Amino acid sequence: MTGPTPRGRRPGEPPTREQIRDAARRLFGEHGFPGTSLRQIAAEAGVDVRLVSHYFGSKADLFVAAVDLPFDPEPAFDALLADGSDGLGERLAAFVLGILDSQRGRLVMSGMIRAAASEEAAAAMVRDRLVGHLLLPLARRLGADQAELRASLVGSQIAGLVTARHIVGLPALVGADLATLIPLVAPVFDHYLTGVFPAPVDGR
Amino acid sequence: MTGPTPRGRRPGEPPTREQIRDAARRLFGEHGFPGTSLRQIAAEAGVDVRLVSHYFGSKADLFVAAVDLPFDPEPAFDALLADGSDGLGERLAAFVLGILDSQRGRLVMSGMIRAAASEEAAAAMVRDRLVGHLLLPLARRLGADQAELRASLVGSQIAGLVTARHIVGLPALVGADLATLIPLVAPVFDHYLTGVFPAPVDGR
Repeated sequence: MTGPTPRGRRPGEPPTREQIRDAARRLFGEHGFPGTSLRQIAAEAGVDVRLVSHYFGSKADLFVAAVDLPFDPEPAFDALLADGSDGLGERLAAFVLGILDSQRGRLVMSGMIRAAASEEAAAAMVRDRLVGHLLLPLARRLGADQAELRASLVGSQIAGLVTARHIVGLPALVGADLATLIPLVAPVFDHYLTGVFPAPVDGR
Repeated sequence: MTGPTPRGRRPGEPPTREQIRDAARRLFGEHGFPGTSLRQIAAEAGVDVRLVSHYFGSKADLFVAAVDLPFDPEPAFDALLADGSDGLGERLAAFVLGILDSQRGRLVMSGMIRAAASEEAAAAMVRDRLVGHLLLPLARRLGADQAELRASLVGSQIAGLVTARHIVGLPALVGADLATLIPLVAPVFDHYLTGVFPAPVDGR
């Protein structure tokens, strides 16, 4: 191939598969995981719905395969970690809650959890993407002991904010704005990222 | 009525509705939300599957209606709060992670999130139950400022542990045992429950 790769085109991917992926990315990004059906994606891509299932499996599988994280991890880590650990928790809280403040960011983040909750195959894909693209790169950058555990605990609090605020919809969290939440969540991220952890119990 | 109320029987509930609820509680408790179908529940209750849908709606609705929390909130709060705020985060972390260490507790807690993630009607029921039976009673007992927000932030970290460890399955959390996790999560609960919170931004 010599020309530029169209948006979303993966090397060697057949054009139809690429059309389906683009259509899925557009519709999931606008209407979220619950508000989008495989049938709508097939219509948007101009293909039979059976072809969508043939290429991508279930709706949850297609969501995870098609939708990108609402940010690019490495530049985000660069910005977050540029000033060292001073104020890191607050920068991370502002970054995460800022993403959740946009409709698109919220739909992508809550869609990942909805997809993982709906079936094990999608959960495995979400797990592999989060571990490979976010948690391990972040852990490598932290330079701390037990780095993967630290990154995963941060992930648990982020997943919990998405679940409690945007999936279950707890009123006190839905009603709290960024300026309220950032200073409350920041010390938790600082604790997980840079706090003194006891030595692992089993000596790892 | 003069005799004792059978297990799970709600006052004025027709016997068939009660049979379905009991069957659902048994099967969901043994096999979890993804591992149980409405058809299996109907067979266990000895009724037509359409009657299950007629009484309870979707599988997610039935899960939330049938399955009880894996603990009784008021006695749990008594035990957790008996010694005041000293060591409260550690007692709460041990309590929550202890529940998640049992298969039944794990299935119920992750089932609540799966049900809420699968449709908005179930999310509304989960929200009403968590707020009414857990968060507001806990907030009342805390005697702290911004008590509902504090209780909801605790709820977010608990939901995050369930989601990250038992739904997405992040390896570093799956591989960490109670003795490792309790002292790491305890300071987060202490911060949310008894830490100094800035005055609310909008003056509430």
